[in-house]
Amino acid sequence: MQGTPQTTKQPAAYAPTDRTVPTRAAHKASYDKELVHAILDEAYVCHLGFVRDGTPVVLPTLYGRVGERLYVHGSTGSRPLRMTGQADAGLPVCLTVTHVDALILARSAFHHSINYRSVVVHGIARDVTDPEEKRLAMDALVDHVVPGRSRDSRPANKKEFAATAVIRLDLDEVSAKLRTGGVNDEPEDLALPHWAGVVPLRKGYETPVGDAGLAPGTEVPGYLKAL
Amino acid sequence: MQGTPQTTKQPAAYAPTDRTVPTRAAHKASYDKELVHAILDEAYVCHLGFVRDGTPVVLPTLYGRVGERLYVHGSTGSRPLRMTGQADAGLPVCLTVTHVDALILARSAFHHSINYRSVVVHGIARDVTDPEEKRLAMDALVDHVVPGRSRDSRPANKKEFAATAVIRLDLDEVSAKLRTGGVNDEPEDLALPHWAGVVPLRKGYETPVGDAGLAPGTEVPGYLKAL
Repeated sequence: MQGTPQTTKQPAAYAPTDRTVPTRAAHKASYDKELVHAILDEAYVCHLGFVRDGTPVVLPTLYGRVGERLYVHGSTGSRPLRMTGQADAGLPVCLTVTHVDALILARSAFHHSINYRSVVVHGIARDVTDPEEKRLAMDALVDHVVPGRSRDSRPANKKEFAATAVIRLDLDEVSAKLRTGGVNDEPEDLALPHWAGVVPLRKGYETPVGDAGLAPGTEVPGYLKAL
Repeated sequence: MQGTPQTTKQPAAYAPTDRTVPTRAAHKASYDKELVHAILDEAYVCHLGFVRDGTPVVLPTLYGRVGERLYVHGSTGSRPLRMTGQADAGLPVCLTVTHVDALILARSAFHHSINYRSVVVHGIARDVTDPEEKRLAMDALVDHVVPGRSRDSRPANKKEFAATAVIRLDLDEVSAKLRTGGVNDEPEDLALPHWAGVVPLRKGYETPVGDAGLAPGTEVPGYLKAL
């Protein structure tokens, strides 16, 4: 904002690194923090990559965000969490989130594509051992599924808290990549008789289905109706 | 099918390995080929993991399937494709596909979850150099976006064909993992006053938007209306 003192401003973008500058289609890349946060906050599942015995592993998992920190949780027995807990130096990971927004059908096979928004985070995952940070992270994980939900559910008890491992990944080496817009056919293909265009994917929610045996008088909460 | 000779039958399941047997929630794992194929065929984007300079990289990318082979394509300049082409022994990868089907809101924070279906494929990606296999793979990649589409678009010309790299990953070390069903709250939580239930995610397509300058008389094709 104009007039805002520089000293109180958060940097608006992540600094590009060798790993976050794409080898091609660099115009699709962005380091804008607001854009990155929006992409992260809209998705439910990330794909967490790590190296085990020298080979890559990619697992889908829920996550939560608190400012410039991402949290992943799971059973204390799950592989990446156990590996992180056992590694003093943390576990090198790559965490990726992708939205598919539309199918792009071009007149040429070559220019078929999709519109998408993705975020790739490189860094070192570290075990969260501080109980207060862990509790906040566990709330963030629930609120990531439905904002406000952590205040309308029973918090983890001592046993559940102990059975849950939480790891943290700082948003530091981060990039977004997007494709938006329409069809990019070659000029000489425009007269071809093939239909070309954009097929947007439907987003949203179906009507919530209440669990059997809800306590009498339990209504669908407002934060769900707002989805 | 009853009466079908065993000799003509394909094995119905992938053989579990150390990498495809989960350390926990083993009841959610499946090795059923039909189920794996269905999960793969329904998604648009996979998350391809590989190791670069000792650290993991996870990138979203389109893919196609021909029987028990997956294909990924890209510019000959893109990192995983270039790395595969340069490695005589191929590139160790992990390719993961995930659908999020529903949000699971439990009375307890601990039992919040999502319903999902995922497939994880481990293996060695290899450069596709045979022109006929490459052409079939490129068709499969277009048909993966919209079945039948490769026959209704201009095929890649010589220059486009040369600019495209295709890598193959055999479906061999593969597992699916699923969560389905409703809320799994603890018996002692059932009387809590929190709403609990399933919020299904909406799936499908919005109305296709034709590109400007379609050749006169070009209608939305039947295979798109069928989506």
